[in-house]
Amino acid sequence: MTKTNPGNFFEDFTVGQKIVHATPRTVTSGDVALYTALTGSRFALTSSDPFAHRLGLSRAPVDDLLVFHIVFGKTVPDISLNAVANLGYAEARFLRQVFPGDTLTAHSEVIGLKENSSGKTGIVYVRTVGMNQNAETMLSYVRWVMVLKRAAGAPAPAPRVPDLAPVVAAANLVVPDDLDFSGYDTALAGSPYLWQDYGVGTRIDHADGMTVEEAEHALATRSYQNTARVHFNQFTESTGRFGRRLIYGGHVMSIARALSFNGLGNGQKILAINGGAHIAPLFAGDTIFAWSEVLDKAVVKERGDCGALRLRLVAAKDRPCADFPLKDDGGAYDPAVILDLDYWVVMPR
Amino acid sequence: MTKTNPGNFFEDFTVGQKIVHATPRTVTSGDVALYTALTGSRFALTSSDPFAHRLGLSRAPVDDLLVFHIVFGKTVPDISLNAVANLGYAEARFLRQVFPGDTLTAHSEVIGLKENSSGKTGIVYVRTVGMNQNAETMLSYVRWVMVLKRAAGAPAPAPRVPDLAPVVAAANLVVPDDLDFSGYDTALAGSPYLWQDYGVGTRIDHADGMTVEEAEHALATRSYQNTARVHFNQFTESTGRFGRRLIYGGHVMSIARALSFNGLGNGQKILAINGGAHIAPLFAGDTIFAWSEVLDKAVVKERGDCGALRLRLVAAKDRPCADFPLKDDGGAYDPAVILDLDYWVVMPR
Amino acid sequence: MTKTNPGNFFEDFTVGQKIVHATPRTVTSGDVALYTALTGSRFALTSSDPFAHRLGLSRAPVDDLLVFHIVFGKTVPDISLNAVANLGYAEARFLRQVFPGDTLTAHSEVIGLKENSSGKTGIVYVRTVGMNQNAETMLSYVRWVMVLKRAAGAPAPAPRVPDLAPVVAAANLVVPDDLDFSGYDTALAGSPYLWQDYGVGTRIDHADGMTVEEAEHALATRSYQNTARVHFNQFTESTGRFGRRLIYGGHVMSIARALSFNGLGNGQKILAINGGAHIAPLFAGDTIFAWSEVLDKAVVKERGDCGALRLRLVAAKDRPCADFPLKDDGGAYDPAVILDLDYWVVMPR
Repeated sequence: MTKTNPGNFFEDFTVGQKIVHATPRTVTSGDVALYTALTGSRFALTSSDPFAHRLGLSRAPVDDLLVFHIVFGKTVPDISLNAVANLGYAEARFLRQVFPGDTLTAHSEVIGLKENSSGKTGIVYVRTVGMNQNAETMLSYVRWVMVLKRAAGAPAPAPRVPDLAPVVAAANLVVPDDLDFSGYDTALAGSPYLWQDYGVGTRIDHADGMTVEEAEHALATRSYQNTARVHFNQFTESTGRFGRRLIYGGHVMSIARALSFNGLGNGQKILAINGGAHIAPLFAGDTIFAWSEVLDKAVVKERGDCGALRLRLVAAKDRPCADFPLKDDGGAYDPAVILDLDYWVVMPR
Repeated sequence: MTKTNPGNFFEDFTVGQKIVHATPRTVTSGDVALYTALTGSRFALTSSDPFAHRLGLSRAPVDDLLVFHIVFGKTVPDISLNAVANLGYAEARFLRQVFPGDTLTAHSEVIGLKENSSGKTGIVYVRTVGMNQNAETMLSYVRWVMVLKRAAGAPAPAPRVPDLAPVVAAANLVVPDDLDFSGYDTALAGSPYLWQDYGVGTRIDHADGMTVEEAEHALATRSYQNTARVHFNQFTESTGRFGRRLIYGGHVMSIARALSFNGLGNGQKILAINGGAHIAPLFAGDTIFAWSEVLDKAVVKERGDCGALRLRLVAAKDRPCADFPLKDDGGAYDPAVILDLDYWVVMPR
Repeated sequence: MTKTNPGNFFEDFTVGQKIVHATPRTVTSGDVALYTALTGSRFALTSSDPFAHRLGLSRAPVDDLLVFHIVFGKTVPDISLNAVANLGYAEARFLRQVFPGDTLTAHSEVIGLKENSSGKTGIVYVRTVGMNQNAETMLSYVRWVMVLKRAAGAPAPAPRVPDLAPVVAAANLVVPDDLDFSGYDTALAGSPYLWQDYGVGTRIDHADGMTVEEAEHALATRSYQNTARVHFNQFTESTGRFGRRLIYGGHVMSIARALSFNGLGNGQKILAINGGAHIAPLFAGDTIFAWSEVLDKAVVKERGDCGALRLRLVAAKDRPCADFPLKDDGGAYDPAVILDLDYWVVMPR
C-alpha cells in the first residue's frame, strides 16, 4: 500500500468529522521578516516592538494574514488536496494576537457536505480553528471548497449546508483587551486619518502597483507549508488548465492588504473576514492594484480609543484602480478584478 | 600582488594539510525561516518548538541539511573554487543537534590526492568537520572533487586514495541521547507510518513536483555563503558549458528531502549520508520530482523508541516518479535522474 | 479628499522643515538572514556572534548598509515619491552599532532647495537621521534628489545649497569604543591582509560576478519598506522610460560591497560614506562586477588596533573588472559602470 498521502476525496468526509492537521509551526521573527519582504507591509503595529509596546502589547504581533495563511496551509493536505476550487470564506475571527515564538496548530470540523449535480464533485464546508501552544484559540473561520469524488456516481450523503453569517456582527468582534490605542502616534504610523475620518461609502484608490514573480509567491506559499500542487509544479501545470502555476489567492490578499496602507495606514489589525472570493487567477508577471470601500462602521463595545471599519478590498491585475473597477451593470465582475474581500479592521480614534 | 583569492589549485594541496575555513556563521531562526520558504520542508521536529520539546529537546533543531550546506559552503573558497566537478560524499555523520543561535565553523584535512591521467586536473579528498561555538563536532564528512592544476604537466605527488566506508555502519549512527520519541504524536507529525511499517525494498513515490527559480537557488546558496561561481554569474555562464547558471546540488538534495515528507513524514532527522552523486545538472525552470527506496533497516543501540532506515533518495527533473526511474539494463542512469543519495534517517517506532 | 499619500512636490518643502518618517522598524535576525541571502555578504563581524563577542560586542551587529537602506526607505514616502532622480549622498556617518532587536526610526530636515532652470523640477537637500529605540543617533547622512514641481512655473524660494564636505574627515570617523580588534582572527575572517597591507592607490578586482533577479531586488527593497514606485510596478514601468522595473541603487551598493569581501575581507565595518553616484541603472538579469581602489588611509584617533581605509568602490554591469573600468580620457564614465561610491571602512592592523 502506498505511504504517500493521496488527499481526501468527497466520499471521505462526513459531517461532524474532526481532523487534526499537521504540521505544528513555530512562527518566528524570521517568518515575519520574510513576510515583510514578500508583501511590503508597512503597518506600524506589526513592524515595531516599541510601537506595539506603547499600545500595551509585549512586542509586535504577527500579521493577522500571516497567521491565517499558516493555519490555512495546514488544512490543505487534509481538506483540499483534491479540490477543484476554493469557493469561499466566512465567519473568520481573529481572537488573540500571535507573537514570534508562538506555535500554531490547526484542526477542522466538517460542518457541511453537498454533492454537485454532476455527481463528480461535492462541496465540503469546514470550520477551522488555529490554536497556540497553550491551546488558546487564535483564529476561527469557515471555508468551503469543491472537492473531487473518488468515483463519479458513488453514493453521497444527504446535503447539509451550514447556516453562515453574511457578516461577522460588530458585537462579535474581539479587540484584544491589552491593545490600547490611547497613546497612538499618527506620525510614526504614517497616516493622519483616524476612525472618525472615514465615512461609510468612502472609496480609496491605493494607487501603487506590485508585480508578483514566480519565486515570490512560491516562497510565500512554501513558508506557509501549503502544499496545493497548482502553485509549485510547472511541469504538470504546463499541460493544465492555464498552462502555468497559479498564485495562491492568499498571496493576493496579503499584497492587496499591504497596498491598502496607502490610504488606510491606521487600520492596524484585522478583526474579522466576513467573506471573500478569488474572482480570477493571478499569474507571475502580473501587477496587483487595489482599492477599498468603507462598507460600515461600528463602535467596539466599551472602547473609546478605537472603532471598527468594515472594508471591501478589491484587487485587480494589470489595471490601475483610480476608477474603482468592480462589476458591470449586469453584475458581472470587471475582467481585471481578482479579489473581492469583505473584512473588519480596528482603527484608533 | 593581488589580494583577491584565486582559490587553491591541485598543486596547492598536500595530504595531511589542515585548513581553517572562514566565515563563522551564527545560524538564526531567520535562516531557518528562509530555509522552510525555499524548500517547503514540513517535518515537525524542525518546524515546532513544542513538538521538539516534547521529544526532549530544548527547542526545534536546525534542519540537518541546512547545517550541511552551511558547513559545505565554508569549504568552497579553499577547496573547490577551481573545481571542475563535485565527485562524491562519504561517511557524513550528524553527531549533535544545531539550534538557532549556535555558530558553525569548519575545518578540513586533505586525506587524499590523485592526479588524473590528463595531467590537467586531480582529485582532492577532504574530511570536513563542522563545529559549534563550544568546539563540539556537529558534523563530519568526506568529499572529493576534481580540481584544476595551475599548470598542466606540473609534477604531482604520489597518488593516495583514502579508504572510505561504502556505508556508515549502523553501530556508528548517533541518535542524540536527549531525543526521546516515546511521546511522539503521529497526527501532528502528519504520517501514521512508523519504523516498523517500512520494509526493506519498499519504494515510495513522493508524488509532488517542485519547480526551482533562479532567485530561489541563488537565495539558498548565498544564504550558505557558498561562493561557487557557476551558481551566480549569468554573464560568464552564458558562454560556459551549459549557457546558464547551474543550481547548487545541495539545493536539489534539500528539495528532494522536503518532497520525501509525503511518504516518509516521520523520518525526522538525518543520521548519516553514506554517499551521493549529482547525476545531472538542474537549471532554473526545471521541476524536481523524487522517490525513495528503503535499502536497509537497523536497530539503534539501546533504543526501543526508534530505529534507523537506510534510504535511497532519487530525484528526477521534469519527470514524475511513479515508476521509480533509475538506471537502464546497461547500468546507465535514466536521463531524467539528477540525484542519487544514500542516507540514514531516524524514525520513531 | 483623497486619503492616499500623493507624496510631496518641490513646492511642499521649505528650508528648515522637519519631517518625522513612518514606519518604525524593529530589525531582527530574520532581516539579517534575508540580507545575507540576498547579498551573499561574508564579513565575519556581521555573520557570527562569537566573532563579534571576541571583538568586544554583545553579538553580531547588523550590516551598516542594511541599516542605511532601512533608514533610507522610511524617507521615500515623504521625500522622493515624486523624485525624478536620486542625485547624491554626502556626510554619511555610522555612529553606533545596530543589533537585532533594535528599532529604527528616522527623521529629516530640509537643508537646501534649488529650482532647476526648466521650472519643472527642483533639487531638495535633506539631512536624515536614523535613531534607535533609545533615541540614540545611529546614522546621519545628507541626500539630494530632483523632485517634480506640482505646477511648472509656480514660484520657488530663493536657492539655497548647503555646504557639504567632499569627504568625511578622518577626525570625524567613529569607531565604536567597545569594538576592539586586538583579538582578531584573520583565518576565521577569511583574509590575511590587514590595514598596513593596503597602500594608497592599490586597486583590487573583486573577480566574482552576481546576477540579480527581479524577485531578489524586489524582496530586498520591500524588506526596507522602500516604496519608490519604479522598483515594483512592471505594468506602469512597461510604458516608462526603460520599459522595465529599475533596481534600487542601494541593492547595487550592497551586492558590490558583498563582492568586495574578495580582496577586502577584513574591511569589517563601514564608518562613513563620503559620496556616491548611481551612474547608470541596473535591470534584472544583469550581472554585477566590482573593483576597489584605496583612495586614502587614516589613523583613527587613539586606536592602535585598527585604521581606516578610504575606498572607491566601482560596480559595473555585464563587464568583468580586471582592467578597472572607470572613465575615459574625456572624463565620461565607461558605459558599463553603474556605481561610483566613496566610503571609509575600518580594518584591523
